[in-house]
Amino acid sequence: MNEKLQLIEELESSVRSYVRSFPTVFTKARGYKMWDEAGKEYIDFFSGAGALNYGHNEPAMKKKLVDYILDDGITHSLDKATDAKVAFMEKFRDVIMKPRDMDYRIMFPGPTGTNTVESALKIARKMTGRTDIVSFTNGFHGMTIGSLSVTGNSMKRKGAGIPLSHTVQMPYDNFVDGEDTLDYFERFLEDNGSGVAVPAAVIFETVQGEGGINAASFEWMQRLERICREWDIVLIVDDVQAGVGRTGTFFSFEPAGIKPDVICLSKSIGGYGLPLAITLIKPELDDWKPGEHNGTFRGNNMAFVTATESLTYWEDPEFEKSVQARAETVTKFLDNMIDKYPEMKAHRKGRGLMQGISSDIEGFSEKVAEHAFERQLIMETAGGHDQVFKLFPPINIDEEGLQAGLDVIEASIKDALKSMNVKTKTAAK
Amino acid sequence: MNEKLQLIEELESSVRSYVRSFPTVFTKARGYKMWDEAGKEYIDFFSGAGALNYGHNEPAMKKKLVDYILDDGITHSLDKATDAKVAFMEKFRDVIMKPRDMDYRIMFPGPTGTNTVESALKIARKMTGRTDIVSFTNGFHGMTIGSLSVTGNSMKRKGAGIPLSHTVQMPYDNFVDGEDTLDYFERFLEDNGSGVAVPAAVIFETVQGEGGINAASFEWMQRLERICREWDIVLIVDDVQAGVGRTGTFFSFEPAGIKPDVICLSKSIGGYGLPLAITLIKPELDDWKPGEHNGTFRGNNMAFVTATESLTYWEDPEFEKSVQARAETVTKFLDNMIDKYPEMKAHRKGRGLMQGISSDIEGFSEKVAEHAFERQLIMETAGGHDQVFKLFPPINIDEEGLQAGLDVIEASIKDALKSMNVKTKTAAK
Amino acid sequence: MNEKLQLIEELESSVRSYVRSFPTVFTKARGYKMWDEAGKEYIDFFSGAGALNYGHNEPAMKKKLVDYILDDGITHSLDKATDAKVAFMEKFRDVIMKPRDMDYRIMFPGPTGTNTVESALKIARKMTGRTDIVSFTNGFHGMTIGSLSVTGNSMKRKGAGIPLSHTVQMPYDNFVDGEDTLDYFERFLEDNGSGVAVPAAVIFETVQGEGGINAASFEWMQRLERICREWDIVLIVDDVQAGVGRTGTFFSFEPAGIKPDVICLSKSIGGYGLPLAITLIKPELDDWKPGEHNGTFRGNNMAFVTATESLTYWEDPEFEKSVQARAETVTKFLDNMIDKYPEMKAHRKGRGLMQGISSDIEGFSEKVAEHAFERQLIMETAGGHDQVFKLFPPINIDEEGLQAGLDVIEASIKDALKSMNVKTKTAAK
Amino acid sequence: MNEKLQLIEELESSVRSYVRSFPTVFTKARGYKMWDEAGKEYIDFFSGAGALNYGHNEPAMKKKLVDYILDDGITHSLDKATDAKVAFMEKFRDVIMKPRDMDYRIMFPGPTGTNTVESALKIARKMTGRTDIVSFTNGFHGMTIGSLSVTGNSMKRKGAGIPLSHTVQMPYDNFVDGEDTLDYFERFLEDNGSGVAVPAAVIFETVQGEGGINAASFEWMQRLERICREWDIVLIVDDVQAGVGRTGTFFSFEPAGIKPDVICLSKSIGGYGLPLAITLIKPELDDWKPGEHNGTFRGNNMAFVTATESLTYWEDPEFEKSVQARAETVTKFLDNMIDKYPEMKAHRKGRGLMQGISSDIEGFSEKVAEHAFERQLIMETAGGHDQVFKLFPPINIDEEGLQAGLDVIEASIKDALKSMNVKTKTAAK
Repeated sequence: MNEKLQLIEELESSVRSYVRSFPTVFTKARGYKMWDEAGKEYIDFFSGAGALNYGHNEPAMKKKLVDYILDDGITHSLDKATDAKVAFMEKFRDVIMKPRDMDYRIMFPGPTGTNTVESALKIARKMTGRTDIVSFTNGFHGMTIGSLSVTGNSMKRKGAGIPLSHTVQMPYDNFVDGEDTLDYFERFLEDNGSGVAVPAAVIFETVQGEGGINAASFEWMQRLERICREWDIVLIVDDVQAGVGRTGTFFSFEPAGIKPDVICLSKSIGGYGLPLAITLIKPELDDWKPGEHNGTFRGNNMAFVTATESLTYWEDPEFEKSVQARAETVTKFLDNMIDKYPEMKAHRKGRGLMQGISSDIEGFSEKVAEHAFERQLIMETAGGHDQVFKLFPPINIDEEGLQAGLDVIEASIKDALKSMNVKTKTAAK
Repeated sequence: MNEKLQLIEELESSVRSYVRSFPTVFTKARGYKMWDEAGKEYIDFFSGAGALNYGHNEPAMKKKLVDYILDDGITHSLDKATDAKVAFMEKFRDVIMKPRDMDYRIMFPGPTGTNTVESALKIARKMTGRTDIVSFTNGFHGMTIGSLSVTGNSMKRKGAGIPLSHTVQMPYDNFVDGEDTLDYFERFLEDNGSGVAVPAAVIFETVQGEGGINAASFEWMQRLERICREWDIVLIVDDVQAGVGRTGTFFSFEPAGIKPDVICLSKSIGGYGLPLAITLIKPELDDWKPGEHNGTFRGNNMAFVTATESLTYWEDPEFEKSVQARAETVTKFLDNMIDKYPEMKAHRKGRGLMQGISSDIEGFSEKVAEHAFERQLIMETAGGHDQVFKLFPPINIDEEGLQAGLDVIEASIKDALKSMNVKTKTAAK
Repeated sequence: MNEKLQLIEELESSVRSYVRSFPTVFTKARGYKMWDEAGKEYIDFFSGAGALNYGHNEPAMKKKLVDYILDDGITHSLDKATDAKVAFMEKFRDVIMKPRDMDYRIMFPGPTGTNTVESALKIARKMTGRTDIVSFTNGFHGMTIGSLSVTGNSMKRKGAGIPLSHTVQMPYDNFVDGEDTLDYFERFLEDNGSGVAVPAAVIFETVQGEGGINAASFEWMQRLERICREWDIVLIVDDVQAGVGRTGTFFSFEPAGIKPDVICLSKSIGGYGLPLAITLIKPELDDWKPGEHNGTFRGNNMAFVTATESLTYWEDPEFEKSVQARAETVTKFLDNMIDKYPEMKAHRKGRGLMQGISSDIEGFSEKVAEHAFERQLIMETAGGHDQVFKLFPPINIDEEGLQAGLDVIEASIKDALKSMNVKTKTAAK
Repeated sequence: MNEKLQLIEELESSVRSYVRSFPTVFTKARGYKMWDEAGKEYIDFFSGAGALNYGHNEPAMKKKLVDYILDDGITHSLDKATDAKVAFMEKFRDVIMKPRDMDYRIMFPGPTGTNTVESALKIARKMTGRTDIVSFTNGFHGMTIGSLSVTGNSMKRKGAGIPLSHTVQMPYDNFVDGEDTLDYFERFLEDNGSGVAVPAAVIFETVQGEGGINAASFEWMQRLERICREWDIVLIVDDVQAGVGRTGTFFSFEPAGIKPDVICLSKSIGGYGLPLAITLIKPELDDWKPGEHNGTFRGNNMAFVTATESLTYWEDPEFEKSVQARAETVTKFLDNMIDKYPEMKAHRKGRGLMQGISSDIEGFSEKVAEHAFERQLIMETAGGHDQVFKLFPPINIDEEGLQAGLDVIEASIKDALKSMNVKTKTAAK
């Protein structure tokens, strides 16, 4: 084994994970490409699990960032005011909120997804005086105790070492075949003997990234919003992974027409892959005391600089359309794969540039990802049994890059069918 | 009001805090100096609450950082291997662990203090199969639910909106006058009818930053370690604020000679003020499953680059001595102030470059900090009633800067005595 | 107001309830009859909410009880051995367990329903090492914190003053129209991302008394048992109200053919209305340490004496049949009422001598019970909105008494239709 | 082994305890005497752990009870009004509350100690809107989850199978040598960074029965009351074991002059050993909703009958004095034993007729109790290591019976010294 990987094995905690799936040492990256120390080039269809929606080291942001640093701009400011912070807030208001007729206060929790979720749960509990949060099966919201309590994955929940409480799990859209799962939720609310109290908040992802690229229908989201309004429940959308353009619009919930009370953003909000998180809170809910939730790195100014620059993409209405066009390409490709290789017993999952294929054959999707890595494409699996391989290219990837990636994926599917010895169905399905 | 501050008032959540104490817009910083948009120069005796121990935009780190970015180094890697990450781990082992005869596995949780604390609590619970954590009065460990459960501050605890459980608070050193508070802890452990179960872990800070710059004695820490050994309790030191040289040695507990099982580092471990956190775990406790605790920004490579460079300071044994010399200057200054201005009813608190003055006069310390800001020095207060003003200069500050800051502080003390109309005691005390 | 009721109003806590519905002072009772201090005679169709299945002051038990007391038999024994206790255990084994091919250890918790439930939950958690208990919507298991956590009623849950945790509520049979509610439970178990861990135990009532006389189908119970076996979940039947003959067999679950791991009995197990509770535990689960769950009144010997005598009823196989015949009379009567008075929009609920009528007209069932009391019949309502009036005559009531009660109920239905001015539907339904 | 004990071993749960210490089958009892099936006579210095303060089958109560039963008095009434219940409330007011200038509402929870404690905790939480309860080391309050949460014993706490929460344990009087333990409690309250919130209530026993016959000083109780008043904390006295005359006055706290907000009574409140419990609540706290806490056996009328009769004892002011005289006899006897047998390294514990001897020799006290049983005296041990043997004769025992018991105890001490081969210290200590 490579000496550097050896050092990692000796020194890094056993909790490490992706280095196990992608065992090489990366040194450079640009756009959708990465290079390892041996100079091998990889196509990145992982995009930092949604933290690199604009690709690696995007040139415009890079320029602003380097200038800022060279100029001795403030690096770390806690939550003191800096020009970089003010510029970000102003541009976020002008480019994102105003055109969408949105009115939210911006909170800067610690710069990670779990931190924005924890802040959202707190404000909902504080403002309602209630304790329970309703989350959904296969939701993923983070690893700290508050966020983990609303996360579904059993392995991660057990990692808490304590019972996780003050939460109720409800079935996500399509969790039970052929049933509208919100019937179930609504029955629990309306029956005063159900044992489930009216919750402080509902938290959900419009497309569940870690949970298996499950997409809720727009109707389901709309009904969920109506239920929240009827029962005066705070509606929180965790848009950490699905937001910032990943599904084709800046916020993933835009096409559903819902208006969440609280929105959690992180990952690509920083633009360049630098840690940043924000919590958007409707003004009437923003009743924090000063410092009631704080954190050392809530003022990561380098991330403000790149975040501000990244919003430039959204000034041009064509940008969304281009993302949607790429998504359409992916959809067609996946549908084609499913038709062409029925033996992989596959279903298309997800929405926008957050799609994947779920195979009913145990281990198949993982095998596809493995072969893809051999062919120098980086792609992750998702779902409780890693039954989904997911296509997460940068949302600004060019046609050529996208096609190159898709070609590798088709080749990897063939590899997997072969290496797993999956029989082609000769007759009609 | 300034238009940018106005914008903050309109757009930022009411949770913002430091911008209220230091109402100006900062634009540049170098070493111990900061400048606002009007060009006013400030002395920084706050150092990002310990996140900027090497001062702002330290030149050597800055150079490495800019080169890395220009060179399209990996920015974001989740926990894939990168050369920047490997370099950090190697240097941390060689410069920090080896010379101190320490053997720990390095875990990269999300890049914030609360994340390393959450990971530490999890591993302790997992490895012992017990649920309770003992923490201490006036401890501060973070804002996410797990960390908040071991934090003492009542305002912040109430912010949780749920009862915080699976923790037991014990009295920190000197919490009750004239009593060895560990007698109390030990009685609870040894009496099987005490209602307090043997905990999974004890977590403590050697000097409590937020809690009022309370320093535990070395004897107290040594006895605490003995108790942990006797009862097979995991000993966690939260060195997020007191570590990385702040008290005069790299780890704050070194002079006490104790060997924690788990060490939490964040804030200045990144060197440059960029988000980073690590959890050091004794190999025999490092039994995480892959991915059992994860996070999007656990691979913030820019922080690896600056962190690696920052460790260069510690290659030279003279560095620690120089920090200790500056600490001695501060100690003398504070003792002198206490003698010279007995009417402020003050006590010196803390250790190393983590010292402050606690005044028994309500509101006095806050007033000193306010006057200091008028005189262009940035300084924070601490403690449950903000009764302490704390001196947190960069640990590599030069003589001149340190003296300039101390001069401002003396002037501010005089201002406060005057503005609060505190009577000088003419006769003997 | 009567002077004695006045005294109650002044001295008794506001928590009192039935004295409000039945405002008179009772002095004597025999069989299905009660008398108040004015000498008015009442028919008791309430039977102490199932604690007086054999009627008041049953003569054979009364004789044994008086003899025992006169003879200076042990009254209170904690859990020391007494001849009365041994006699009860022996007869319970011979008359109840042996003929049903049941093998259980008998535990004597404190002599109340909530105590047997608390003991059942403890042993299930202890034996599985898991923490969560699955209970069902509209279940009722008691008022102490452990039992209340598995109780559905929202008013009673709020009374806890703390969040109730370590439990998951699942939908009882027929909770969601047209859906097999166990589909949901099973999906939650089999999806490792559901956020619902495999529980220690499932606890349920075969017919929910307080929750609205909801009866689970035998198929539902059988499937629930299969799920428990598949996932190694302890199956607890709370037979406190439905047991001891109330639904037509000694244990209510007998016709379903299931074999619970733990059975909770109280109320009529004492026979005479004296406090007693037992927990039946499969031998392989009975791994308590001595005294791990105890209580002062676990040896209420007077209750052992009457309990032993009450079992005599069950020696004669005709007894069950006679109960079932009475139940059939009630069923016919209720069906007839529903046909005859379609304007009351009623549905028959329950099973055996645990039946009632649920009316869709708000307040109707309560009104029937009120009129019944005016007509000197005592009858309770149930359900989250008191939408059910329930017929709980003694299970050994004679034909004449039963008919007299039914006549009063029909008259009360007419009264209620009239007093609430419910329009008779003249045309066909 | 005896065939009946054999049957118990086969049929009764392994949780049984006292039958293990006293392995014989009891059949009759009167006053302080018990007889087993072989006709052997025993002196009872256990008194049902305080449930038989008036001895077994007290003749006056027995007469009333038999008459009531023969007369077909109401046995079970839930909380409907009965003449027996009204008579009890009236006499309790007249004989107990009025002369002591006490004004409380009487609540009837389920008829066990744990039930009254659970009701007390609920009302305190409800009325304050706070969640935490402060209890004390070595307190014992019951086995259901709410009561167990405030109980100290670690074996019993583990039996819960879940973490017990919403409680804070504070040190009981004398828990830490030479320190006023309320200093700690007060520091925790007054420091807003202590991590301990102002609790809803404090619950304590004036003399801890199960915890080792620890008696709090009157000064300690008075200071505790002052703290509760200052912080607006509900003060609950659990007088289940120490109350009803056991320590020399009806309520154990009378000599301390404190006025609890809530008082829990059970055990001997029923007089005859029949299950009964009451919760006394200051009128301003009695804000229960009807039925918010209920229970099947809250109207155990036979217990009302005997309870009413038992209060006759307290009509005569001489009765208290006679109990105190007996207590004085016990005190002198125990002091004499300690002097006479210094080799047993003993200390006197407790107050009134709730006294015992704690020996520093491991296993000694248990051995004394064993020998006492051989000599036909029934006596229990207490404390986390059973280090105390406790003298619990009926409080109305006659001189002769008391002396007979004390003689057996001295003989048993000698037996134990011999059988354990404890060396007599010949020289000076």
